[in-house]
Amino acid sequence: MLKESQSQRTITFITGNQHKVKEAQGIFNHFQIEMEHVDLGYPEIQGELDEVARYGARYAAKRLDKPVIVEDAGLFIRDLGWFPGTYSAYVQSTLKNRGILKLMEDVQDRYAEFRSVVGFATPKAEPEIFLGVVEGKIIHEERGEYGFAYDPIFVPNGYDKTFGELKIGIKNRFSHRRRSLEKFALWFEDYRGD
Amino acid sequence: MLKESQSQRTITFITGNQHKVKEAQGIFNHFQIEMEHVDLGYPEIQGELDEVARYGARYAAKRLDKPVIVEDAGLFIRDLGWFPGTYSAYVQSTLKNRGILKLMEDVQDRYAEFRSVVGFATPKAEPEIFLGVVEGKIIHEERGEYGFAYDPIFVPNGYDKTFGELKIGIKNRFSHRRRSLEKFALWFEDYRGD
Repeated sequence: MLKESQSQRTITFITGNQHKVKEAQGIFNHFQIEMEHVDLGYPEIQGELDEVARYGARYAAKRLDKPVIVEDAGLFIRDLGWFPGTYSAYVQSTLKNRGILKLMEDVQDRYAEFRSVVGFATPKAEPEIFLGVVEGKIIHEERGEYGFAYDPIFVPNGYDKTFGELKIGIKNRFSHRRRSLEKFALWFEDYRGD
Repeated sequence: MLKESQSQRTITFITGNQHKVKEAQGIFNHFQIEMEHVDLGYPEIQGELDEVARYGARYAAKRLDKPVIVEDAGLFIRDLGWFPGTYSAYVQSTLKNRGILKLMEDVQDRYAEFRSVVGFATPKAEPEIFLGVVEGKIIHEERGEYGFAYDPIFVPNGYDKTFGELKIGIKNRFSHRRRSLEKFALWFEDYRGD
């Protein structure tokens, strides 16, 4: 028993976002993983989500000299060439949901997905990537008071409510971030690296 | 005379874009500046144009161990919160001009500007930034066969033709890139750094 408790692993989550910290903590509690978090700014490059996460994780692991994870997420709309993607936060702050709804006027194909990528790195090893996806569609108006950003215009498959109408506890049960963090946690429990 | 010719300075332009190479060469010919170019990939971070250029120039100067410039440009539309800005290339490849025109339907304020930023760095000194701007407006349809990307929907102030309707030689006389490169060249001729 003592040996088992000693085998608990520690991971450092690089983020300045308290919501992410809480969500990750809630998930890691179900695993043999201890989490600390550090609000270390890291360079976010332009590119695909997984490139952003790889680069950030590698940078932070070297800076802190220990194993770290970073997380990055975005909304990907099929008819718009998967826009806004990596740049979802920027697009939300400029065009807002109003702009997305305007772009989607008269568009038949409403398919969209939220993606979350967790990037894991150590000071030595190449980064590993864990992807979580929630499929759904863009509706024609904003609905709901919960969540933030694109939540009020996104309805996940199998539901008739937007992420903005689902209480945070319900959304977190199957969110893209939960899926990527769980994938990572499952893998990390058995990780045999440095 | 010999002394003057020896004082000619050399700068390395980091780019894989032959059009940029040609345009810069044409400008530097008017100055005591010799240019070489290297197609070295460098990390483009997310952020303001000047941050992207600073980061890229610093990275490349250290990698090559000599003074370098990089150049980055974008279209900034006032009514859209200065979207697409730094992410102009990405937005052009996803939404295209069709998407921009849709976002600008029924918008009264058509003001937009092209910005170009040249970032200069040496292996030791902090980067310097040179900004070139062309003011204009977004029209309601695409016009013109020259240029590329947003050129067909942008009419510079004082003209009634789009950048897409102006031959490349005319556009280059007052383009945002010409302005930033000229600003740099004027400064670099007198530069007394390492």
